[in-house]
Amino acid sequence: MNGKRVGESTIRLERPPRVRAWAAVGGKKEKEGPLGAKFDKLFPDTMCGEKTWEQAEVHLQKAAVRTAANKCHLPVSALDLMIAGDLLGQCVASSYAARGTQVPYLGLYGACSTMAESLALSACLLDGGYAQRVCAVASSHFCTAERQYRFPLAYGGQRTPTAQWTATAAGACILTQAADDCAPVRITHVCFGKICDLGVTDANNMGAAMAPAAHSTLRALLRDTDTKPSDYDGIFTGDLGEVGTRLLHELFRRDGIDISGVHEDCGRLLFSKQQDVHAGGSGCGCAASVLCAHLLPQLADGSLHRIVLAATGALMSPTSVQQGESIPGICHAVVFESGEKR
Amino acid sequence: MNGKRVGESTIRLERPPRVRAWAAVGGKKEKEGPLGAKFDKLFPDTMCGEKTWEQAEVHLQKAAVRTAANKCHLPVSALDLMIAGDLLGQCVASSYAARGTQVPYLGLYGACSTMAESLALSACLLDGGYAQRVCAVASSHFCTAERQYRFPLAYGGQRTPTAQWTATAAGACILTQAADDCAPVRITHVCFGKICDLGVTDANNMGAAMAPAAHSTLRALLRDTDTKPSDYDGIFTGDLGEVGTRLLHELFRRDGIDISGVHEDCGRLLFSKQQDVHAGGSGCGCAASVLCAHLLPQLADGSLHRIVLAATGALMSPTSVQQGESIPGICHAVVFESGEKR
Repeated sequence: MNGKRVGESTIRLERPPRVRAWAAVGGKKEKEGPLGAKFDKLFPDTMCGEKTWEQAEVHLQKAAVRTAANKCHLPVSALDLMIAGDLLGQCVASSYAARGTQVPYLGLYGACSTMAESLALSACLLDGGYAQRVCAVASSHFCTAERQYRFPLAYGGQRTPTAQWTATAAGACILTQAADDCAPVRITHVCFGKICDLGVTDANNMGAAMAPAAHSTLRALLRDTDTKPSDYDGIFTGDLGEVGTRLLHELFRRDGIDISGVHEDCGRLLFSKQQDVHAGGSGCGCAASVLCAHLLPQLADGSLHRIVLAATGALMSPTSVQQGESIPGICHAVVFESGEKR
Repeated sequence: MNGKRVGESTIRLERPPRVRAWAAVGGKKEKEGPLGAKFDKLFPDTMCGEKTWEQAEVHLQKAAVRTAANKCHLPVSALDLMIAGDLLGQCVASSYAARGTQVPYLGLYGACSTMAESLALSACLLDGGYAQRVCAVASSHFCTAERQYRFPLAYGGQRTPTAQWTATAAGACILTQAADDCAPVRITHVCFGKICDLGVTDANNMGAAMAPAAHSTLRALLRDTDTKPSDYDGIFTGDLGEVGTRLLHELFRRDGIDISGVHEDCGRLLFSKQQDVHAGGSGCGCAASVLCAHLLPQLADGSLHRIVLAATGALMSPTSVQQGESIPGICHAVVFESGEKR
């Protein structure tokens, strides 16, 4: 039997799939942020030369996929599966980006957890021999998300201090079967998360809604793999922001665990405090682009050896928020390793 | 290596997972349709006793999952994965239905192809040993879909002759690893589809938008497995309706293949012509409930031995339609067998 469940919820990949290539693309604010220089491609114009913001987000996804494919000298059509998602109703950024590729396509909805959901599914399908080359991709766009979730931008709505800023960005990873590749970065474990909802109803405080899910999934991963936070060079959540990060540290502190030394959040890494983004970045494109611009390069060059990406999603919709529903949070985790097996 | 790609796009499951239990739930119109008596549960009231239509759709999904779990004497919490989707923005029917189950959850968006996408992914994860008991579930609700895609119902918008009627229904299947079960129905092959878009822009003619995708995926499956339509007791698309069915037959006729004797469409099966649904049923709940109310029971009692479920999705959103975009179609196929291996 390939793959193997470890403990209650974690899957150990017996033939860890490789991350053969990756690419991060972003917009103007991402360029001005601390990771700006690490992006593969940056678009100074929020329209990316297209006619609508939605088409611009499609453009971001296509650029990320094409750039990653170019890096491994493959045409996009050589992929045998694309697993993609975004924040928009009916995931249109992803389906319109995949249209025309001639690659089998699976659409996901995991809100800001999408990149981890996609990577985890891709890793299982590769490990089991169901595919040989899979592209995991996720995107978000500040303007399409504002139109979707809040108001037309022209309304100039006030943002609360707990609000996060949706990244205009996409990240794409091309994963291959272990046997086909000697790329140094591999995915060794994945953990699919359960929905946690402690009753937060404020859609401008998604960090608080998602922190319990991050805590639940990370606790399950650590328990199942019999590891402690210090066994990792970094545990990266995405995207709890300032508020969710404080809550996550507090939840772990109650378990007698201090993760503050090893934990960082993609929503805090993408933008600086000077950029007026309030509680930090968010959106499927945030964790996806921070992974591809900042984390995977460090795994490849040996400055990181073992990390967790624990991407978190707030699974509400504009309709559910208007109806007064609380916000279900989710978190899926993926363990990356590089270099020699410890 | 477990599982195996056959030909270009098809996956043959070496240890075909079992469909251990299933359930179909529906509303008033589904009760009045030709399959009404075969549903496990029918709600005469579109609200299902809830306060909003969206909560009613959540209620449908929960009822389908619980009924299926009851049939195999399992608590829902004994599942190790739930893979679910629906038509709503941010897939809220699924995430709110999964909330509170304490089961790891993966959200999908494949429009009306969702049930096949979920079954296909579930089958791979079980075959590969990544999970032992997975629930694949999908739902739709006429009123939530009208609110999402068209107008508030109170507007009384006119429906065109090509329009389809969104099913108020959900279907759930509980799948288990081959070794754990002797249930007679198994999934032997799955085929993930590519997006096809021939330029249809009329959101009231989804059958036309989806027929080329059904043709593409079914052609790939037949080619990869070296089978012909008559090797199956039935090829069931979902949900092309009257218009899409005629187009699919025409596309196959051009290939010199007559599938009219073996093909049927879930959108044509769920409602009768007297029910004023115009071109037939649609929605994630249509294929899901026809599978669970009508097809799986026939596989279990031996009146069907080998069938294809080829569920089709129209991957547009209200925003993409308003922006004049054409409609990307997709189709994922799942082969079910029962009884002795042929």
